[in-house]
Amino acid sequence: MAFRTSAPLTEEIAERINWLGQIGRTDNGGVTRLLYSDSWLKAQTAVKQKMEEMGLSARFDDVGNVFGRVEGTEERDRVILTGSHIDTVVDGGKYDGAFGVLAAMIAVSRLKQEYGAPKKTIETVALCEEEGSRFHLAFWGSGSITGRYQLSDATTVTDGQGVTLEAAMRLMGFGQGKYPAARREDIACFLETHIEQGQILEREHLAWAPVSHIVGMKRMIIHLSGESNHAGTTPMTGRRDALYAASQMISDVISHAKEQNNGLVATVGQISIQPNVGNVIPGGCTFALDVRHHEYDVLHDFCTKELEKFRLIAEKESVDLDSKTWLDDAPVKMDPAMTQRHVSLARKAGIPFKTMVSGAGHDSQIFGTYCPTAMMFVPSHNGISHSPKEFTKLEDLETGVRMLMKILREMAY
Amino acid sequence: MAFRTSAPLTEEIAERINWLGQIGRTDNGGVTRLLYSDSWLKAQTAVKQKMEEMGLSARFDDVGNVFGRVEGTEERDRVILTGSHIDTVVDGGKYDGAFGVLAAMIAVSRLKQEYGAPKKTIETVALCEEEGSRFHLAFWGSGSITGRYQLSDATTVTDGQGVTLEAAMRLMGFGQGKYPAARREDIACFLETHIEQGQILEREHLAWAPVSHIVGMKRMIIHLSGESNHAGTTPMTGRRDALYAASQMISDVISHAKEQNNGLVATVGQISIQPNVGNVIPGGCTFALDVRHHEYDVLHDFCTKELEKFRLIAEKESVDLDSKTWLDDAPVKMDPAMTQRHVSLARKAGIPFKTMVSGAGHDSQIFGTYCPTAMMFVPSHNGISHSPKEFTKLEDLETGVRMLMKILREMAY
Repeated sequence: MAFRTSAPLTEEIAERINWLGQIGRTDNGGVTRLLYSDSWLKAQTAVKQKMEEMGLSARFDDVGNVFGRVEGTEERDRVILTGSHIDTVVDGGKYDGAFGVLAAMIAVSRLKQEYGAPKKTIETVALCEEEGSRFHLAFWGSGSITGRYQLSDATTVTDGQGVTLEAAMRLMGFGQGKYPAARREDIACFLETHIEQGQILEREHLAWAPVSHIVGMKRMIIHLSGESNHAGTTPMTGRRDALYAASQMISDVISHAKEQNNGLVATVGQISIQPNVGNVIPGGCTFALDVRHHEYDVLHDFCTKELEKFRLIAEKESVDLDSKTWLDDAPVKMDPAMTQRHVSLARKAGIPFKTMVSGAGHDSQIFGTYCPTAMMFVPSHNGISHSPKEFTKLEDLETGVRMLMKILREMAY
Repeated sequence: MAFRTSAPLTEEIAERINWLGQIGRTDNGGVTRLLYSDSWLKAQTAVKQKMEEMGLSARFDDVGNVFGRVEGTEERDRVILTGSHIDTVVDGGKYDGAFGVLAAMIAVSRLKQEYGAPKKTIETVALCEEEGSRFHLAFWGSGSITGRYQLSDATTVTDGQGVTLEAAMRLMGFGQGKYPAARREDIACFLETHIEQGQILEREHLAWAPVSHIVGMKRMIIHLSGESNHAGTTPMTGRRDALYAASQMISDVISHAKEQNNGLVATVGQISIQPNVGNVIPGGCTFALDVRHHEYDVLHDFCTKELEKFRLIAEKESVDLDSKTWLDDAPVKMDPAMTQRHVSLARKAGIPFKTMVSGAGHDSQIFGTYCPTAMMFVPSHNGISHSPKEFTKLEDLETGVRMLMKILREMAY
């Protein structure tokens, strides 16, 4: 590691991670902070208070995002925004999202302590609902800032108990004009530090990565209808076995993703068959397909070709195929100029790094279509995320904070 | 059809089928008569009474089988036994089992009316629990007669509510020595008429089939352990995807069963994956494999070779494989001499028939290892069984009864 470790900085990071990790802590040692739950409000409020303690001027917006501001001495009206989110999946880890929020707070407060007020205004942010774990509407916080979502969208989305996003938000005191509107026009750029959620940095013994793209993603549901029949009395010829057809499709799509060898990933993570009885030929099969790549053409061509193959397999096996693409997100390119400057800074600092693609979704993909955006990864042990086992070594967290400090120093001072 | 249809016989069959189908009738138009339930007892008791009305001397045995006897004038001590079962699956049909019982009753009573007492004793039988639907112990009635099961086996088997087979049996008045013991040493041979439960006869426009074998069956559970991981951030290389491995296995085993083209059938009817979330690589997969053939060597070789292939696929995909064969039943050959005589009778009668293998299990496979046994199929519309939609045309039912009459006449008179 090129950075000399600084006991006070390491200690501060450890202390902050553990402090925030206590809020919404589960018996499992994990963290559950679902949007507009009590533990979420407790965490957002604690973050706001901590921002104040750290010398930032803090405020909520009307959807519950929390900002901590340091006023620029020369450019006050355009804001360098940096942070991440503190909502979690059920029984998630204490690094995902949280680290990006804390890294921003620590970096900005340390810069202020060391160099005084910046020339350009910086705000740290704890965004709300990146995960979409309570409401199936991810990126509610960043989407509200950037204009992707309106408050009216909150009336139609409900959680598992049938509570609307609007009702849940109001119960927490938001969505009523009590705070400034979420929509912003003053964001100059967005920077997010996050754990990788994969094993690439760890396996390649790297400490840090500027992200070039956040992948595009297509998610499909494939439903096959064949004919259920007796496993013993139905000859092999003339069967309409939906699972047999599905197994050929799954085997085909995963094999071809492997063969591409271009970073495309394809996953079938969900399957169900009907009637799912050992001695009955499956008459129905439904499976989910998730495909990701950082170039939309590659993603689209792969899916189009595979669906065509699925059709041929379905025809051969005399099953009816119904496919639905319920998510079709284009890849988002991070700002090339910002990314390039970060590469130079990392090279100068002598840290082992590589530019990489994010296979997971992040708030940065929402900001990425709205303003120049940059994202930075730190390693993630065993690539485990959304789990109490989530872990990143302190020295890697420190690298993340130090790089963010260098970047903000260069940008704002 | 070579037989002149006889209105009285057709009517009698229709009347009897509908009469028995009313007992345990479901809202669906199906029939539910689980072993030792009220509807089952009602049906067995009604069958006993009907046997008496039809001129047979009827009795229960100690497990609840019902027999209707016509004493032979020359050979009294060795019994030609013919019948089937009246228990059903939940919401089953009114032909499966029931037709074989009624066909025997009608055939024997008509022969007696027409030709008087036979030389050899004949008994018709309504066996109990062929299906194994309430207790996972199929063939309890025939198994008790042939000595495969002892009363003590009833103490260890429970239904879904935790009631032991013994307790359920006692509640109905059986298993207490009130009736003669089930075990018999006087059975000369067994004959069973049954609906095919497949589509072969219907598709080939045949009216009847003597059965040469009841298939052997292996049933396995295959469990694969890989590694769950993020669908977006885990590169295709180095994944340990349990469903991808399973889909190759399923595709392979079904393809190879098709290629055999020797009557072997293989079915994967049940599958589950863990965690079964669309954006998570499946770390675990469990599936059930059901393979059947009428020659044990063919069955055994196929399964051995497939398991070896499964191992190679598992190795290639870096998943751990665990397989368990929980059922390994050898095929049972029906008595060749009896079957040959039935072929001659069918040929003489001029009915369109073929000798075939039964892919489903029947009481005849229990009797088949104990005494000379013959089984006869009538067609089954669309091969549907264990369903309210079960249906066999009256003219086909009549062919079944007439053939049984010819056979019994030749054997017993």
